[in-house]
Amino acid sequence: MLPITEIAKQMKAAAPFVAAMEANRRSEALLGAAALLRENAEEIFRENEKDMALSDSLALPLKKRLRFDRPKLETVCRGLEELAALPDPVGTVTLRRELDRDLVLSRISVPIGVIGVVFESRPDALVQISGLCFRSGNCAILKGGSEALHTNRILFSLMRQASLSAGFPEAAYALAETREEIGELLACDAWVDLLIPRGSNAFVRYIMDHTRIPVLGHAAGVCHIYVDAAADLARAAKIVLDAKTQYPAACNAVETLLVARPVAPVFFAILTGRIKAFEAENGKKIRLLGTPEAAAILSCEQAGEDDFGHEFSDLTLAVKLVADVDEAIDHINRFGSHHTDAILTEDDVAAERFFRLVDSAGVYRNCSTRFADGYRYGFGAEVGISTSKIHARGPVGVEGLLTYKYLIEGTGQTVGEYANGSRSFHFRDLPC
Amino acid sequence: MLPITEIAKQMKAAAPFVAAMEANRRSEALLGAAALLRENAEEIFRENEKDMALSDSLALPLKKRLRFDRPKLETVCRGLEELAALPDPVGTVTLRRELDRDLVLSRISVPIGVIGVVFESRPDALVQISGLCFRSGNCAILKGGSEALHTNRILFSLMRQASLSAGFPEAAYALAETREEIGELLACDAWVDLLIPRGSNAFVRYIMDHTRIPVLGHAAGVCHIYVDAAADLARAAKIVLDAKTQYPAACNAVETLLVARPVAPVFFAILTGRIKAFEAENGKKIRLLGTPEAAAILSCEQAGEDDFGHEFSDLTLAVKLVADVDEAIDHINRFGSHHTDAILTEDDVAAERFFRLVDSAGVYRNCSTRFADGYRYGFGAEVGISTSKIHARGPVGVEGLLTYKYLIEGTGQTVGEYANGSRSFHFRDLPC
Repeated sequence: MLPITEIAKQMKAAAPFVAAMEANRRSEALLGAAALLRENAEEIFRENEKDMALSDSLALPLKKRLRFDRPKLETVCRGLEELAALPDPVGTVTLRRELDRDLVLSRISVPIGVIGVVFESRPDALVQISGLCFRSGNCAILKGGSEALHTNRILFSLMRQASLSAGFPEAAYALAETREEIGELLACDAWVDLLIPRGSNAFVRYIMDHTRIPVLGHAAGVCHIYVDAAADLARAAKIVLDAKTQYPAACNAVETLLVARPVAPVFFAILTGRIKAFEAENGKKIRLLGTPEAAAILSCEQAGEDDFGHEFSDLTLAVKLVADVDEAIDHINRFGSHHTDAILTEDDVAAERFFRLVDSAGVYRNCSTRFADGYRYGFGAEVGISTSKIHARGPVGVEGLLTYKYLIEGTGQTVGEYANGSRSFHFRDLPC
Repeated sequence: MLPITEIAKQMKAAAPFVAAMEANRRSEALLGAAALLRENAEEIFRENEKDMALSDSLALPLKKRLRFDRPKLETVCRGLEELAALPDPVGTVTLRRELDRDLVLSRISVPIGVIGVVFESRPDALVQISGLCFRSGNCAILKGGSEALHTNRILFSLMRQASLSAGFPEAAYALAETREEIGELLACDAWVDLLIPRGSNAFVRYIMDHTRIPVLGHAAGVCHIYVDAAADLARAAKIVLDAKTQYPAACNAVETLLVARPVAPVFFAILTGRIKAFEAENGKKIRLLGTPEAAAILSCEQAGEDDFGHEFSDLTLAVKLVADVDEAIDHINRFGSHHTDAILTEDDVAAERFFRLVDSAGVYRNCSTRFADGYRYGFGAEVGISTSKIHARGPVGVEGLLTYKYLIEGTGQTVGEYANGSRSFHFRDLPC
């Protein structure tokens, strides 16, 4: 295999041709990939068995992610078919403006170009990410978790085969397999347009600190739920339980619970009941860390200084009382990670204030923070979730993998004529 | 004055309140600023005289930029009024989707938050940039070139006064005045969301290499013009002259001329005539650096290895012959800086190919590269021009200073219900 630098260089040269391909080729690659995956299902499962056999030391949730079985195959294949059915996102005209007679500016959507994606040991991610790149006309260097080596290899080779049959150039996709190659990739700022790292906070932070390539993603997911004085408290307890327990390791799980002082005693009583039921049913303990004030009315441990703004990634929840929605907003903007935060209230004024003032990629009312996800937003899939303010924010699907270019069609115009006043602009927007 | 770190921290806390302000306050600030600038014109000119008096060592073009006189005042005031008249860009709903019954996702435009802008000694830039920040609801730390110190101070104080009268918080805008403060600003990644540096390539590159804050801008502007075999050659010569000479120091001036081999002898004859006329009229020399092949049919110096892909920023132009549009595209994608590149041709097929395959923020046909500019695109003004693929590309006006957030309004939904199949998404887009 070629060094990553050489792969990236060739990919950069191929990228404009991928961007210029006809739309039906992109759909063809997606449908072809789904067909190939189904045809080669047994071989894929055999390769996955090899990975599973080597995974004894992994924790159970990681093993579950690593397993690639028929239901997962069906899910990713349906995902590819859904992406194929979407209207082609490349070449969409988003602005047309006559600057002057016979001088027309337009803006069209184009792929970003070369994307590097580093993701966890989860084979379905390889299919989803390649699928999003096919749909958006991007080239990609993919590096999956090493525990999924055999599964990734066969999935990648089938995805690539589908891309080649649809007319994508040889250089459009590559699979990296070693840690050293990540280091090489970080130095490819001349050829790689965007990096999307997924994984632990420390890993994402490391990537952000060691490259000049723009990075899309999130280092931390510190999500909050604020239970307002006007909340439906029974419903609130149900939502808090879901947001904490449905998948505690996810970035969109809740880490801090803020409760309006007046309803705290009643709400804690309801919540405690729900927690006990959950614990009895699941044989798991939820750990609550409260401020002294919360601890006075809730059975919990004492929270430390650093427990607010901390991503526990397990069944731990920090708890604090606040006066009102304004104090909640202030706490969230100060300690949160601008990922996803929710208010539970029946009060439209408080909700409106929360929507306006909370500075996060996702701001929710009366539902679980766990909805922050490309699939649940109807994006078909996601390459990741961004907590950056720049480019794409929240779950990133096809749209986040596109940029635009400005085109001007003229008939000999020079800027000198406009500078000396012999011609002037009239700026008239045209239908797109 | 407070240290930049403290200013940035307070600004970050104020940013959500600025973002949540009513639209008419933003317009009010813009109109108020225009009125204040006009009222205080004489004092502004006096302060500008102080800067001009200290500017003897500056080159003439820099002095011209530093000068702030009545025509410039009128231009910036009209710019502010135009921005005030634009529809408010904040809070625009760009997606509304029913995920399930009583569970609605929406996406609305919001300001980025806190922006740091470092710009050259050009007082009109201070007004334009502040105006774009007012319109887009962003807070900003502004650092202008030190030669414009007195002018910047009075302009900033008037802009700020207008913002306060319209209800913007005290902490929303700040002026930095020293080089040391730029260093402090680069370390403020916890509070500053975006940096926009303007100035020399070396300066922009330095900023990009010394901060974890996302940077918007361009280090290099290496623009190309390709004269196709099917070009209107007389018109082509006129366009090349404009793109090279109308403002050679600008990033959108042409640096490399590519000419289709079959028309090169005739085109060079026409171009040489135009160049001679320009030189005679302006008392300036245009320096052509040709490949050996070009030099054989054009009176020029020999181009060196590094002359292609180089930004001369003066009346120098590198010249090369190519076989056809494909070789031109390949050269541009390889040696260009993805800023703005033009094809001159009457052949629709060649133009279409150039539009599709040239990977630049601006791709033009039959007009000068000098059109790459926020004002000429009808954006009212620009904070800068981006050669990044990420976030904003090309001239950046109000739109580039916005991001979005996703809101969900629910009625108690939990993700568990969707995971266990008791509820399912139906994804129905609603009118925005």
